[in-house]
Amino acid sequence: MTYESLEQAVAALRRHNQTMYAYHHAMSALMHDASTAAPKNTAAGRGKAMEILSGVTYGLVADPANGDLLAYLEAHADALDDVTRRQVEVFRKGYDQLGRIPAEEYVAYNVLINDAQDVWEKAKNASDFEMFAPYLEKIVDFNRKFAGYYDPEKLPYDALLNEYEEGLTMQTLDGFFAELRATIVPLLAKIQAAEQVDDSFLHKSFPVEEQKKLTEYLMEVQGLDRGHCGIAESEHPYTLSFNTRDTRITTHYYENHVTFAMYSTIHEGGHAIYDMGGDEVYDYTNLQGGVSMGIHESQSRFYENLIGRSRAYIHAIYPKFKELFPVQMEGVDAEMLYRAVNKVEPSLIRTEADELTYALHIMVRYEIEKRLIDGTLAVRDVPAEWNRLYKEYLGIDVPDDKHGCLQDSHWSGGAVGYFPSYAIGSAYGAQMLSRMKEDLGDFYADVEKGDLSKVTTWLHEKIHRFASFKKPGQLFEDVCGKFDARYFTDYLTAKFTELYHL
Amino acid sequence: MTYESLEQAVAALRRHNQTMYAYHHAMSALMHDASTAAPKNTAAGRGKAMEILSGVTYGLVADPANGDLLAYLEAHADALDDVTRRQVEVFRKGYDQLGRIPAEEYVAYNVLINDAQDVWEKAKNASDFEMFAPYLEKIVDFNRKFAGYYDPEKLPYDALLNEYEEGLTMQTLDGFFAELRATIVPLLAKIQAAEQVDDSFLHKSFPVEEQKKLTEYLMEVQGLDRGHCGIAESEHPYTLSFNTRDTRITTHYYENHVTFAMYSTIHEGGHAIYDMGGDEVYDYTNLQGGVSMGIHESQSRFYENLIGRSRAYIHAIYPKFKELFPVQMEGVDAEMLYRAVNKVEPSLIRTEADELTYALHIMVRYEIEKRLIDGTLAVRDVPAEWNRLYKEYLGIDVPDDKHGCLQDSHWSGGAVGYFPSYAIGSAYGAQMLSRMKEDLGDFYADVEKGDLSKVTTWLHEKIHRFASFKKPGQLFEDVCGKFDARYFTDYLTAKFTELYHL
Repeated sequence: MTYESLEQAVAALRRHNQTMYAYHHAMSALMHDASTAAPKNTAAGRGKAMEILSGVTYGLVADPANGDLLAYLEAHADALDDVTRRQVEVFRKGYDQLGRIPAEEYVAYNVLINDAQDVWEKAKNASDFEMFAPYLEKIVDFNRKFAGYYDPEKLPYDALLNEYEEGLTMQTLDGFFAELRATIVPLLAKIQAAEQVDDSFLHKSFPVEEQKKLTEYLMEVQGLDRGHCGIAESEHPYTLSFNTRDTRITTHYYENHVTFAMYSTIHEGGHAIYDMGGDEVYDYTNLQGGVSMGIHESQSRFYENLIGRSRAYIHAIYPKFKELFPVQMEGVDAEMLYRAVNKVEPSLIRTEADELTYALHIMVRYEIEKRLIDGTLAVRDVPAEWNRLYKEYLGIDVPDDKHGCLQDSHWSGGAVGYFPSYAIGSAYGAQMLSRMKEDLGDFYADVEKGDLSKVTTWLHEKIHRFASFKKPGQLFEDVCGKFDARYFTDYLTAKFTELYHL
Repeated sequence: MTYESLEQAVAALRRHNQTMYAYHHAMSALMHDASTAAPKNTAAGRGKAMEILSGVTYGLVADPANGDLLAYLEAHADALDDVTRRQVEVFRKGYDQLGRIPAEEYVAYNVLINDAQDVWEKAKNASDFEMFAPYLEKIVDFNRKFAGYYDPEKLPYDALLNEYEEGLTMQTLDGFFAELRATIVPLLAKIQAAEQVDDSFLHKSFPVEEQKKLTEYLMEVQGLDRGHCGIAESEHPYTLSFNTRDTRITTHYYENHVTFAMYSTIHEGGHAIYDMGGDEVYDYTNLQGGVSMGIHESQSRFYENLIGRSRAYIHAIYPKFKELFPVQMEGVDAEMLYRAVNKVEPSLIRTEADELTYALHIMVRYEIEKRLIDGTLAVRDVPAEWNRLYKEYLGIDVPDDKHGCLQDSHWSGGAVGYFPSYAIGSAYGAQMLSRMKEDLGDFYADVEKGDLSKVTTWLHEKIHRFASFKKPGQLFEDVCGKFDARYFTDYLTAKFTELYHL
């Protein structure tokens, strides 16, 4: 169709945005229900509903009328305000991508992903990679093909990386990971030769009811607005924002692992604060919510590690911890708690890794994904390569695929190229920390009093309020200048040299 | 459009049904989340999503292409199987109704209802009818007008009754309520002159954690399939079925009112068993779920009263009750518990009324609705008339509107003509009970052992499995023959004469 005025076209864009938002909200509610409240045998009916609604939203994006609308708006780009222009840009990207994927491939991929999740879960529990391999093969093939649709100019894996962190390339990552390894590997060797930290008291029995009180307290310290941010329990912790003013985080309680719920709550709380911090002008538009996975992880890991695992923070929450768990904390002072939550130890499971070795887990996945996509690694060889890399990077033996290449749900969910954003997020965070110190001086003195307001206000001003308005590279550079992994390696070196008296 | 074959038209009908189901599931998930899990300040974003999705579903039903589809299917009705023919009939009813309501009136009414709910809640809390009156006036006007759209041949209030219980008329209800009053009023007078039942022990302090265990136990006794039926907490108890295999019930715990959660759970469990009992052939169609409010209430109140408040049932659950609440139940035997849960006492609040006086609460609402719609009662006179009728029917004085005409959410939600289905459901249930006894003999001997399987199997065979396939009148008559209020009045007379030694 043609538009009679710019006003009319902008109104059509607004309607499209709001309609997409409504479906996002509804499908988020379905997913959140599935993970937190749904009775266990209800997947079939929910799958049916999701299949139909996914088809509807595909049609809403791929609708050829959107091509006319976009062409009209782009032809009048100079007359648009910045926010609308960016909306058009984001809309264009999604429209072109979906438009290039043939509808039958899109549907086939969604059916595959739906089946693969189920098969992966069973394969993981049976520690049987063979069961999952045919699905992973198809997922890799689809992703290689989709990469060509996303951006035929790019190398396929670069096109996939770009989906999760706009502008990120293998060239950047190869250099970044090399720098990281050059710091982490020798530092880890020194730590392993030093006197070990005792964290055994964190694995005593911590009643779930008391842990829930700790969660409430930690959310309060973090300044999470409970009128807009809910907490629930699920198998794996996550953050899901229905909209800027309605965010849900989840956690999982393990009686013998009190820090799991503690740090997953702080981590997801970081995602939630980012999502909730967007300016109102972006509400119900395609600029609502965080801009990329890398920036999102920079915020979640900022709160989790740079704040939550700082000495100041541990001193702030120590009295409450002691009050809730007097028996378990018998004879443990704040410094001992600080060292325990920072214990370094190469381990099998990424989500339980310490701050130092975490990036090594990511590097293993990066190497494997890169080679799966460029065809130099066959899916059937993934377990052997995984185990070899864990030995090489972390120095440990993988006993089985359940604790190895089947541990994460990302691949079964179709997310190839996602993992690197975790490591890049940590590095973004360290560089932000440096900048924050320049601006605010000794804000850790406030943190030590349990006051995170300066931290959150700074992040809000610099990052959160922009939602998805700025591209991630621009957003980062406007705050921190050029990205440099040195901030992260320096931070790790200083922290762990001091902590382990190296 | 025209259809090339019956097969093609039936496929279009199936697609329409499944699409409507998907939206029903999504919007149900939104509503359930709102009542059970959503953070308190998230209504705005959810309202936005609901408004958009409601608009989409309005368009899906009112789409003129449906007129062509229906005409084609109706022209080939003889070639359709019974189930498809009934789907066409139900689809036709909804299409014609919505088609007759001008779109702008439909939207205006939905906006009004949305606002009215908020205003009603505030008015109720402030006990200020004046605040709510302008909204109720508009709601009454809309309903009078809609009644003409629904069925211009019927008296307006009959057309509204027909929405909730197909075929129900004022003529039927006037006779039915007259019979009820003729039994209940003198019976109540005798009870009030007799020795009163002591239920004070039910209002001691019952810790919520223990009440939750009771709920779990009661659901088990009722035979609720927990793999398909969830339980959550909300302000007001309700049942919401996402689909035949995914039903959610809720309850609310009051520390000093243990039977509230107990009987609301059994009541909602009855709704859930009905919804979950539909044959698979109705899944994802417009015949999924219970057929009418009257039949639905007949099932919920069957479990709540005819089973749950029977001597046999109380004897069955008494040991568990005593085990969970040994201190509160000190010196209370099963017979005392049986009498306490059946204590008769005229009261102000419908949802807390006993089995005998419950219908009197409904009669007050029926009288008022009837006269609001036929114009012989003005909205501003509702409080005075309400209070007069409570004095006349129940012999009690209403202290304020919060405990009077503002207590229920039905009117603010636009449900005018809904209340009578509660009373008719109780009477349906009593007639079903009589028939069940003829078929099964002394099934209460099983109930006394905590075995409800014969009861549920009978109800499943006779009622549940048909979902919305049969019209309510037909469904009832196929099982019980002609409706006769005597079954209900005889039941009440026998039960309370014995219980109060009259």
